[in-house]
Amino acid sequence: MTFEIRARDAAGRLCRFTTRHGEVTTPNLLPVINPNKMMITPKEMSQRFGVEILITNSYIINKDPDLRTRALASGVHSLIDFHGTIMTDSGTFQSYVYGDVKLDPLEIVRFQRDIGSDVGTILDVFGTPGQTKEESYDGVNETIRRAKESIPEKGEMLLACPVQGSVYPDLREQCARQLSCLDADFFPIGGVVPLMENQRYADLVRCIIAAKRGLDPSKPVHLFGAGHPLVFSLAVALGCDFFDSSAYAKYAQDGRMIFHWGTENFDDLAELPCCCPVCSTSSVSELRHLDVKERTVQLALHNLYVSFAELRTIRTAIKGGWLWELVEQRASANPFLLEGLQVLREQPHCEWLEQFEPVSKKTAIFYTGPQTIYRPTVFRYHTRLFSRFDPLFDTTVVFPEGTKPYSMGYQQEIKKILSKKHVNFVVDSTLGPVPFELDEMYPLAQSVFPMSVDKETREITQHVAQKFLKTGTILHWKKDMTLVQGTSQRLAFDFDLRRVSAVADMQFGRGASEALLHGKITIVKSKRTGKIRNILCDKSHALSMRAEDGLFTLKADGARRLHARFPFPVLRVVVADDAVPFVQEGKSVFSKFVLDCDPNLRPFDECVVVDRTDVLIAVGRTLLTRDEMLSFNHGIAVKTRESIK
Amino acid sequence: MTFEIRARDAAGRLCRFTTRHGEVTTPNLLPVINPNKMMITPKEMSQRFGVEILITNSYIINKDPDLRTRALASGVHSLIDFHGTIMTDSGTFQSYVYGDVKLDPLEIVRFQRDIGSDVGTILDVFGTPGQTKEESYDGVNETIRRAKESIPEKGEMLLACPVQGSVYPDLREQCARQLSCLDADFFPIGGVVPLMENQRYADLVRCIIAAKRGLDPSKPVHLFGAGHPLVFSLAVALGCDFFDSSAYAKYAQDGRMIFHWGTENFDDLAELPCCCPVCSTSSVSELRHLDVKERTVQLALHNLYVSFAELRTIRTAIKGGWLWELVEQRASANPFLLEGLQVLREQPHCEWLEQFEPVSKKTAIFYTGPQTIYRPTVFRYHTRLFSRFDPLFDTTVVFPEGTKPYSMGYQQEIKKILSKKHVNFVVDSTLGPVPFELDEMYPLAQSVFPMSVDKETREITQHVAQKFLKTGTILHWKKDMTLVQGTSQRLAFDFDLRRVSAVADMQFGRGASEALLHGKITIVKSKRTGKIRNILCDKSHALSMRAEDGLFTLKADGARRLHARFPFPVLRVVVADDAVPFVQEGKSVFSKFVLDCDPNLRPFDECVVVDRTDVLIAVGRTLLTRDEMLSFNHGIAVKTRESIK
Repeated sequence: MTFEIRARDAAGRLCRFTTRHGEVTTPNLLPVINPNKMMITPKEMSQRFGVEILITNSYIINKDPDLRTRALASGVHSLIDFHGTIMTDSGTFQSYVYGDVKLDPLEIVRFQRDIGSDVGTILDVFGTPGQTKEESYDGVNETIRRAKESIPEKGEMLLACPVQGSVYPDLREQCARQLSCLDADFFPIGGVVPLMENQRYADLVRCIIAAKRGLDPSKPVHLFGAGHPLVFSLAVALGCDFFDSSAYAKYAQDGRMIFHWGTENFDDLAELPCCCPVCSTSSVSELRHLDVKERTVQLALHNLYVSFAELRTIRTAIKGGWLWELVEQRASANPFLLEGLQVLREQPHCEWLEQFEPVSKKTAIFYTGPQTIYRPTVFRYHTRLFSRFDPLFDTTVVFPEGTKPYSMGYQQEIKKILSKKHVNFVVDSTLGPVPFELDEMYPLAQSVFPMSVDKETREITQHVAQKFLKTGTILHWKKDMTLVQGTSQRLAFDFDLRRVSAVADMQFGRGASEALLHGKITIVKSKRTGKIRNILCDKSHALSMRAEDGLFTLKADGARRLHARFPFPVLRVVVADDAVPFVQEGKSVFSKFVLDCDPNLRPFDECVVVDRTDVLIAVGRTLLTRDEMLSFNHGIAVKTRESIK
Repeated sequence: MTFEIRARDAAGRLCRFTTRHGEVTTPNLLPVINPNKMMITPKEMSQRFGVEILITNSYIINKDPDLRTRALASGVHSLIDFHGTIMTDSGTFQSYVYGDVKLDPLEIVRFQRDIGSDVGTILDVFGTPGQTKEESYDGVNETIRRAKESIPEKGEMLLACPVQGSVYPDLREQCARQLSCLDADFFPIGGVVPLMENQRYADLVRCIIAAKRGLDPSKPVHLFGAGHPLVFSLAVALGCDFFDSSAYAKYAQDGRMIFHWGTENFDDLAELPCCCPVCSTSSVSELRHLDVKERTVQLALHNLYVSFAELRTIRTAIKGGWLWELVEQRASANPFLLEGLQVLREQPHCEWLEQFEPVSKKTAIFYTGPQTIYRPTVFRYHTRLFSRFDPLFDTTVVFPEGTKPYSMGYQQEIKKILSKKHVNFVVDSTLGPVPFELDEMYPLAQSVFPMSVDKETREITQHVAQKFLKTGTILHWKKDMTLVQGTSQRLAFDFDLRRVSAVADMQFGRGASEALLHGKITIVKSKRTGKIRNILCDKSHALSMRAEDGLFTLKADGARRLHARFPFPVLRVVVADDAVPFVQEGKSVFSKFVLDCDPNLRPFDECVVVDRTDVLIAVGRTLLTRDEMLSFNHGIAVKTRESIK
């Protein structure tokens, strides 16, 4: 098996998962195949939907003498006529639904191995939401015990060990952590179907986060039993990679159609509110005239078209950097899903999410409602403003939202202000206070808010502004205000230098500007846009400012200065000796050669690559968090930009 | 032409529009056909998308000698090979885009008539958003002048007269009002393309509302040039019936794909985030390998699939009563669209929207964000609470959200309270204060809110609660509070009677309970649910309480009592003499026979039907507002339930 991250957004990831039977792109959905009644055959699934992976039930196969014999004789792939990746379930869910089903935990694992399942599942103990903590604790321990016993039996098969723990986040995390110490390959989050059936999405979110905190980040995570596209985007944003759907068939049998906003009864519809091939080519009355069986197939096809389109949408959002926007849009369709999203506002969850959040994105932040201000990227900005922005000002001039230093003649106005070195110019924006120096930096210039936002957002940003503006003299600038003193005076400081300095501190940490900007500093601007492009320090190229996000690309000389100034492990990615020659040739750093990494580096942060003795060997851009670098065996950890000898 | 309302939600309506060339369901989209270059032929449009109506340009046909000759010889239907309804545009937009195009206003109308257009358009004067009010005023007057001149030329053709007035709502309304006095058949709202191009949706909303205020409600309204599904739902909720799309083709030519959340460049996509037949059956790389022309056609087909699905979704939402939910979801995808939605919070717009809002709906209110509390149905509830709910209480006990009189043992608790006749029990809910008597009435029991709502919503409802609870003694009830006085006392009033009385006043107006509930009152409850079903007054059936919305169905005896109590025109729909015999036979009341109507009746309100001398002849349920009843010549105004002799 290989599993590697190819793109990311929020705590979500787009990965390539490879098994003996091929390659799968995640996030993805495993249609559930009941070998006894296939409403849509696996063959049709792969032809029509490009299905690369599916799940079937080894308990059902094992129980039926005919299926059992055929599966053992020629394998599960041949049994259901599918040649992609097959995952098998163990019967845990059946024992939850039907009570005791008499299964031997080891026997069912061996059976899955023997029929050639690509990913088998242990017989875990289904933890229900109604359990006491003691019951749940016992179930978790039994699950872990069975995992330990089962692993030696897995052979060539990948083994899935579900995370249980009912609605107790500490048990979920503990279970996840213990399973991650074992040689397991795949982590379903189990026992969540009753939560989803009752739309308890707040509890679902707590379960997912708790599990993810404990899990090895380099293994696929599967939200067991989640088949409704309503929850896909939120679950992906929290780091789930796989879903499985029997919903497509079960809902169809009940005459229900799945949409990304919920479910509609076919019988209630006069028209089909969807553009899938079923809904675009047949009318309600045409479907109504089909016989029940054929109509059910059509509804199941619709359900799958919609589900797979939602996954393509999610993957597109990950690549485009608008996964949070998608999650918030979906949450606006269902108040219970919104409750799930609201859980993320809690401080520990904000902090947990912040570590995965890309440093910048292709797409601007779109305000969707009160959720937006709670996004990790805003949380990060507010945090860094207090910890990284230089607070040494004796006077602060606060400008209303929309003010830009280079626009609307404001620069002239500012120059009219009696110029002191320690005047701070701040815009009172919807994202919080924005010092002029930072106003081209992601996400401040890359955000789209309506003229008027909700009171919750306003209160939060005003609270941050009050905290930020608490010292020195505060002057609130109004459009009609004129400060006549020093009209003819020039600005007492170099605004460009202040911008470079402030962005460097925000991006690399306080002290970065001091490290970078000594000696003779030359700021090169774009002739066309007037914006800062390159910073030379003593004639050597230290930094480039990117037009798209207003952040710096670190060059060799800048890397040298930062490396010299900051102690280990700040900004470092440490690579093993084996990899040093390759990195020095300019090759990228692969995860498996990473020995350590600054825990404060975030995805797409600029970093310095060093060897074990902290000798600087390259400068590059991270693709992973520290935990990921240390866990993944496949894929690139740092994209090297320049090697340094 | 006939045009009649078949279903409704918000100020939106689902209508049947009939022309010489067939029947069209609205809201609908007219694909724009350029007769010189048809990317997708009208024939394919009707086969693939069931297109019933489209629009082509008479200016282009007229300018091209060949097209002109063929159109005059065999008609525009034959020219473009389409046998549904054809609308033609006049060249106004071309004169806006290309400057003066030398057109004679009367000639182009006659030409459209002569080529057999079903709906022709006058050559109006395009009012740009940059115009001064004076310029706009002149343009409006010239448009009206041309409309007056053109109408006598229209012959059998229906004539569309666009509402202009730039961004000046008073001019828009005035233009609409003056055009409505003429014999025009169809009202485009013109001059809005520049607003949409710049995402000025707040201005767009103001233009639409102003036009709708002035327009004859019985005529179709077309948002000229709106072809992006992003705006469809909001425009429909404000009463637009038609859109036209050249966007499907123009965007495709630029390699852009339309989605209901916005637009994506095909070149930026690694996958297709959509389930339409194009996106479900081809991959990005397959499309990329097509030649440009064929790919453009595929993108255009995608754009149309998505656009028509959005219209089906909107029509489904109208029928299901979730149009506001859909509008709010769409607005969460685009901050500028949200600005448009926010315009509706302004008091005059709330009041205007309230008149169209159905009295109850099939679907519960779903909270989507701070927008929800501004919906017309909530505005109505708050207004009626102050104007219709009996304020004579000396003590009010306020319970926290979630309290129900019949649940959780609270009834026992309430009984323990020292019982006075004038104790008012109120739940402090997210929708505002809810007296126990009203807690099964739409929308109070039919709403789904998350546990925690945004501060804006909380502040609004708290403001209403403060206003409502300002008199008498207020007692805030807490779970752990025990009031021991009068423990053994029984409730000093009949709660069921209080419920019947309060709902009657809220539904029919203050005084209704007094009118209905005299003599011997018997309240019949459902044996299964324990809920109130029928109210007999002196043994005669006066009211039934509907399980689905907690509102009353009015029976003959109830109607008699209300008719006797309330002066004309309260609750009345007055029908012409011709119709009286039919209504007395139990037939429904058709709009064209309505002489007058209580302006306070709302769609789906219970009403009493009277003749010209105010003699009661039936009881029924309205389908239209007063203005609609008086304007429409087709369709049902009141669904008669019982005739009364």
